[in-house]
This record gives sequence, structure tokens and C-alpha cells, in this order.
Amino acid sequence: MKARVHVMLKDGVLDPQGEAIRHALGSLGFEGVTGVRQGKVIELDLAPGTTEAQVDEMCRKLLANTVIESYRIELPGAPVPTSGAEERGGPDAA
Amino acid sequence: MKARVHVMLKDGVLDPQGEAIRHALGSLGFEGVTGVRQGKVIELDLAPGTTEAQVDEMCRKLLANTVIESYRIELPGAPVPTSGAEERGGPDAA
Repeated sequence: MKARVHVMLKDGVLDPQGEAIRHALGSLGFEGVTGVRQGKVIELDLAPGTTEAQVDEMCRKLLANTVIESYRIELPGAPVPTSGAEERGGPDAA
Repeated sequence: MKARVHVMLKDGVLDPQGEAIRHALGSLGFEGVTGVRQGKVIELDLAPGTTEAQVDEMCRKLLANTVIESYRIELPGAPVPTSGAEERGGPDAA
């Protein structure tokens, strides 16, 4: 069984990597790229029967730094989340 | 308009970061995690009218190293790809 975890910096947290990508895209001649944010995606091969609660605990304990990052869990069989749905990790940083 | 690009190491390419995560999850007491792969997700704010072909070119020129990485593009309005569909960047590394 596979799970996928998306970890993104919260809104308001400076993202120098994303900024570097935006600048590089501009230098390469790609106009109209107004913002870039870079995050991580972690694919987990899990034993059958692993629950979403367990994956959530992995995120809180290791995979995401919930002070500055939010995360989203995709499990097989679960409904495909719409954009922005189910972001976890607490409120956005100021 | 937002686009999202997923960049993953191809199968067969060693992923030390993923391996470190797998080991750390085991140390934390999470049993049954048999494999971990870590990739990147890049969210792009694009001018309206930017085509998928342009995003594809960004991937090939900057965002992904197609020697060792495959990528997948998510555009708003496009059908949600099923897992494994539309992986680009050429065949898996041996």
C-alpha cells in the first residue's frame, strides 16, 4: 500500500529555493511566472492496514516541521483532495 | 493560474534521503514502512494562457534533471491523473 505526503512551506514563510527557481525561469526567458513555491513529496510503501492516523503521526513526528510547514496526506482509495483541501499542520505562519 | 510539477527520482536511482527517512521512521517505532522515496513538488503561479507545452519546457530546461528524474505536470482544469500516469522524462534509469 502506498501513501503520498505533500509538505509545503506555510504561506508567509519565506521560500528562498522557490524564489531562486522563479529568478532562473525568468533568466531562461519564461515570462509570466509570478511566483514559485517549492515543497517536498514523500512516497511511503506501507504495510497493508496502515491507517491514515498513523501516517498523520509520522508527519507530525518526522516528515513535516509544523511550525513552518503544512502537509497533506494522499491515501489510495481516499477521495482525491481538491486543491487546498485538508492542509494540516495548524494555521499559516504570520 | 496555478500549475504544480512533481519531480521524483526514477526507479533504480538511489535515494539516500528517502532511505534516511525510512530508517528514522523505524527508529521512531513506525513498523511496516518498507520503502520511502522523496521528491519535489513545485507550485508555479503562471500568467493566464500559459500552455502545458510551456510548463513542459520549463521542466526539461530547469525543474527536472531528466537523466535521473521524471516529472508530472498538474494543470487546473486538466483531468486528475491516476497514479503513475503521465510520468515524463524518458525511461527509468537502469
